[in-house]
Amino acid sequence: MSRISETTRGVFVISVTPFDDSGAIDWASLDRVTDFYLESGADGLTILGIMGEAPKMTQAEAAEIARRVIGRASGKPVIVGVSAPGLAAIADLGKAVMDLGAAGVMVAPPGSLKTDPQIHGYYGHVTRALGEEIPVCLQDYPLTTGVQISDEVMGRIIDDYPSIRMLKHEDWPGLSKISKIRAAEAGGRRHISILCGNGGSFLPEEITRGADGAMTGFAFPEMMVSVCALMAKGDRDRAHDLFDAYLPVLRYELQPGLGLAVRKHVLASRGAIASAALRAPGAGLDAAARRDVDFLVERQQRRLAELGFDPGSPAR
Amino acid sequence: MSRISETTRGVFVISVTPFDDSGAIDWASLDRVTDFYLESGADGLTILGIMGEAPKMTQAEAAEIARRVIGRASGKPVIVGVSAPGLAAIADLGKAVMDLGAAGVMVAPPGSLKTDPQIHGYYGHVTRALGEEIPVCLQDYPLTTGVQISDEVMGRIIDDYPSIRMLKHEDWPGLSKISKIRAAEAGGRRHISILCGNGGSFLPEEITRGADGAMTGFAFPEMMVSVCALMAKGDRDRAHDLFDAYLPVLRYELQPGLGLAVRKHVLASRGAIASAALRAPGAGLDAAARRDVDFLVERQQRRLAELGFDPGSPAR
Amino acid sequence: MSRISETTRGVFVISVTPFDDSGAIDWASLDRVTDFYLESGADGLTILGIMGEAPKMTQAEAAEIARRVIGRASGKPVIVGVSAPGLAAIADLGKAVMDLGAAGVMVAPPGSLKTDPQIHGYYGHVTRALGEEIPVCLQDYPLTTGVQISDEVMGRIIDDYPSIRMLKHEDWPGLSKISKIRAAEAGGRRHISILCGNGGSFLPEEITRGADGAMTGFAFPEMMVSVCALMAKGDRDRAHDLFDAYLPVLRYELQPGLGLAVRKHVLASRGAIASAALRAPGAGLDAAARRDVDFLVERQQRRLAELGFDPGSPAR
Amino acid sequence: MSRISETTRGVFVISVTPFDDSGAIDWASLDRVTDFYLESGADGLTILGIMGEAPKMTQAEAAEIARRVIGRASGKPVIVGVSAPGLAAIADLGKAVMDLGAAGVMVAPPGSLKTDPQIHGYYGHVTRALGEEIPVCLQDYPLTTGVQISDEVMGRIIDDYPSIRMLKHEDWPGLSKISKIRAAEAGGRRHISILCGNGGSFLPEEITRGADGAMTGFAFPEMMVSVCALMAKGDRDRAHDLFDAYLPVLRYELQPGLGLAVRKHVLASRGAIASAALRAPGAGLDAAARRDVDFLVERQQRRLAELGFDPGSPAR
Repeated sequence: MSRISETTRGVFVISVTPFDDSGAIDWASLDRVTDFYLESGADGLTILGIMGEAPKMTQAEAAEIARRVIGRASGKPVIVGVSAPGLAAIADLGKAVMDLGAAGVMVAPPGSLKTDPQIHGYYGHVTRALGEEIPVCLQDYPLTTGVQISDEVMGRIIDDYPSIRMLKHEDWPGLSKISKIRAAEAGGRRHISILCGNGGSFLPEEITRGADGAMTGFAFPEMMVSVCALMAKGDRDRAHDLFDAYLPVLRYELQPGLGLAVRKHVLASRGAIASAALRAPGAGLDAAARRDVDFLVERQQRRLAELGFDPGSPAR
Repeated sequence: MSRISETTRGVFVISVTPFDDSGAIDWASLDRVTDFYLESGADGLTILGIMGEAPKMTQAEAAEIARRVIGRASGKPVIVGVSAPGLAAIADLGKAVMDLGAAGVMVAPPGSLKTDPQIHGYYGHVTRALGEEIPVCLQDYPLTTGVQISDEVMGRIIDDYPSIRMLKHEDWPGLSKISKIRAAEAGGRRHISILCGNGGSFLPEEITRGADGAMTGFAFPEMMVSVCALMAKGDRDRAHDLFDAYLPVLRYELQPGLGLAVRKHVLASRGAIASAALRAPGAGLDAAARRDVDFLVERQQRRLAELGFDPGSPAR
Repeated sequence: MSRISETTRGVFVISVTPFDDSGAIDWASLDRVTDFYLESGADGLTILGIMGEAPKMTQAEAAEIARRVIGRASGKPVIVGVSAPGLAAIADLGKAVMDLGAAGVMVAPPGSLKTDPQIHGYYGHVTRALGEEIPVCLQDYPLTTGVQISDEVMGRIIDDYPSIRMLKHEDWPGLSKISKIRAAEAGGRRHISILCGNGGSFLPEEITRGADGAMTGFAFPEMMVSVCALMAKGDRDRAHDLFDAYLPVLRYELQPGLGLAVRKHVLASRGAIASAALRAPGAGLDAAARRDVDFLVERQQRRLAELGFDPGSPAR
Repeated sequence: MSRISETTRGVFVISVTPFDDSGAIDWASLDRVTDFYLESGADGLTILGIMGEAPKMTQAEAAEIARRVIGRASGKPVIVGVSAPGLAAIADLGKAVMDLGAAGVMVAPPGSLKTDPQIHGYYGHVTRALGEEIPVCLQDYPLTTGVQISDEVMGRIIDDYPSIRMLKHEDWPGLSKISKIRAAEAGGRRHISILCGNGGSFLPEEITRGADGAMTGFAFPEMMVSVCALMAKGDRDRAHDLFDAYLPVLRYELQPGLGLAVRKHVLASRGAIASAALRAPGAGLDAAARRDVDFLVERQQRRLAELGFDPGSPAR
């Protein structure tokens, strides 16, 4: 199976983990949603991230999910989130999933890092603990981690740790961070792959700034595939038209804490998973929120049709 | 001049404070933007909030801004932000602006509050320090203050402190908080006015849940006026059509830290202020961001025209 | 093996995990330090806490440490820290260590809890996930967790979750919290065991307020044993004399981040572990800090002798 | 009046602000406590810091306090805290107090600073806004501000902003930070004055590392004066003996949130202020805490006598 590299491009969908209403993993739905993502045009998957409810799994469940999704993904690359409070656990899990055929691992900084030297030093520890052969995607998500990585530190991390091949970019605001990374590359710094998160809420702008694609879990992954394709063709206006049609739902899904329940509700409505249940202590949507989402999705599909897009399949 | 009350409805625009490029207050622009807001259909103004760069003013400047805007607002209600680290300063400033003719004061919780009893107790201190005659708008903005007010605490605050007449609602996610407040009122709790912030990013849904209007500073305040008017007429689909047209720019303006520079850039482009300058240490938009915004605004105006709205004037 | 209960009293030492200089667990030193703690007069041990470097272990190492210490402890109760980001991992690890003979489990609140209802609800989830037979020690340590548990919430947790039998008390300041819990018990609330942490820095005062002992890892555990014994005999002044002699070193060990390196340096000096090494990314003491500690320890032993105590063995 | 400089040494006491029981400033007590500090051997005073309840003052009260204390201090240098959310207020207040005769101003970083470049940049803004003639003391107090200044950033601040003449050092742990600053000076960097805070809890060690004295408000300021004098004479053991005698009370006063009430209770007991009242929303000590403090102070005075010190007057 291929590994991620500095030149990886495309859409990696952050996969949900489906549960049944008792909180047990629904393995049949896990297969189904894996198929669904790939049929939506995904170039790869990322599993066991925050939105995959990874911290709620036992270590045995996490390994079994990795095995199952990698096996199901028909050779498409699967990145596995291995963030953990300690280096030993990161190294342990990282090596295990690479042996299972993962394409790389993703590591977010722990909230205990306070200063720039600490942040820089942390990725030295992580990349040494994993060994230089394992490609790493750095998840830069200050809203959740509380760790703000300055442009300067990001540059030194890229300079000093070659096994960091990819950035999951979800700083907010974060457009200028992309521009600065690309400008530094123009000045000779090593190029890395930048895939953008935050639900895709700035995807067209991010691609304009030089991002290589998306890595996020919006419940309509075909939007991301289409936006990337239209931007690649140079059809920026059409890309924005499409993006704008999805934006009202995307905004609703972006609500912190609530967003995963929105996402699972939509995925269940679309038949990609059997139940919208979150594992405790997560809670589902109440009736009013479900009504909101259904209303917005209906409007979205109407708008897509109006624009001449075929709702549900990626526009290439 | 009228004061805010539990039954206040409509759109209160959070006013920017215009500066010239040296960082001095641009008084002529302050007059002009005050007029601009009212011509856009605003029912009132809120000044000296976070997005009014209040913490960057000296106390003398703050008082002069209040005097000027209240005088210019032709009798429309003006709420003044008086959040400060200590009660004495809140009481001092609060009484001073009420004497100048303010319609009420706005107070956000300080970040030092950790537990529910502390949050509840704080508003007891504040309302006693101000005296029961001064109507208070509680600003609930956890993303910035770091203080999360639970539904339970909000209910006890409403029960115990009658001078709190209004909620500036910008919890995120926050729709269910509105629903719960309104449900408790149905069960007998005192009604309060709820005006919504967060740039207006959930305005149609918030009104559906029972909000009374908006209090935020989106650079196209006519959008908020129109959405409120269309919702009041029961034309929910048309309200969403209009809202969706503005959403791409609104999303860009919502970026924390960067948003005010976006807002001032648009206001300057619209002629409402002379310069987009922020007072130091704030920074303006770089060229790439300005291009982004201009591109999005152009698309927005095109879409509005397509929908049959007259861009720039509120649809009633 | 006995389990902890509401009436547990005494000194539970928070055990370090010894490593060799390569970062591997030093099993022989683990045995030796277990013996050392019990010979110092400890009534029990607590393992896999923050100061046991638990987050740096793999899950397999954690289980093996639990097995080894429980086996070595000659029937003395061993509490195992099982804090984890998700309930499934807590339940999994909790049941596993109880099967190995643990006396109970310890759970700190995750930093994501913001409001009082969330904190209260979390312990409902935890105690249900573990099952009501597993006795739980709640670790209340806001300086590290960022979660401030108000007196009111603590009371509701005690009322509602009977399997919470013990409080590891390390709120700071926290004396009035102990007084309020004991006052509520006088008024009819269920009694729980309170063992105090924070390095023992308020131990005499805490016992005066009604605490049942200590649960912390000060490198001179015989101090805690002696203070508890002297306070139990009613010899408060002598307890303070002893405590005061240790206070300068205790204060040095209390430094956040640095404290564990101080503790391991002292334990290595005392022969309780072979190496003072911390597992990466932890760092040891530099030469200046080692000189500080050695100077303070020498002064401490001199002062103890002056006071007529036998340094190194608990005064009963 | 003399100004602070890079070579300032000695003890600057952080002054309390006395209130009467109604919350009004007690001007007579302000005079009395100013005299008390100077009679205790203080080389200077620092007013309007956090422990001076500065954020609870109106701007007019703050200015009047500055005028009064500077006038009363008989030519001894008085540093004034001017931290504020905005640069304009800092500049305004800073210039005003310098005109009144202040010896310098103190500025802590606002909690909004997240990255090293932001922290460094902030002090550029501050020193430019104040003008290069006003000497600045940088307050480095992460436990309260939430801003962690790395050694590297501290070095760049010293390099780049010459008007920063003094560091109020209260990082915790912070001994190695002092050592690193002094080592860099040995390597050619500009020397700055370092006065230590945190209640004096590491004062002897800090002086050993190269600090120039203390700037904190411990209710027995003669301890700090004596420790500095004994260390200057090279009598390190005697300095520690004295320090250790005060440490139990010092530790009690160091409790966050509660500490100021402890301090004012002691100062009132010593006759330095009329009432121990804090301005709302601060609370005083409850009866149990007052008993704790009185018990500890009595033991302290006994121990001092035992050691041959004259309690209440500085040992030189």
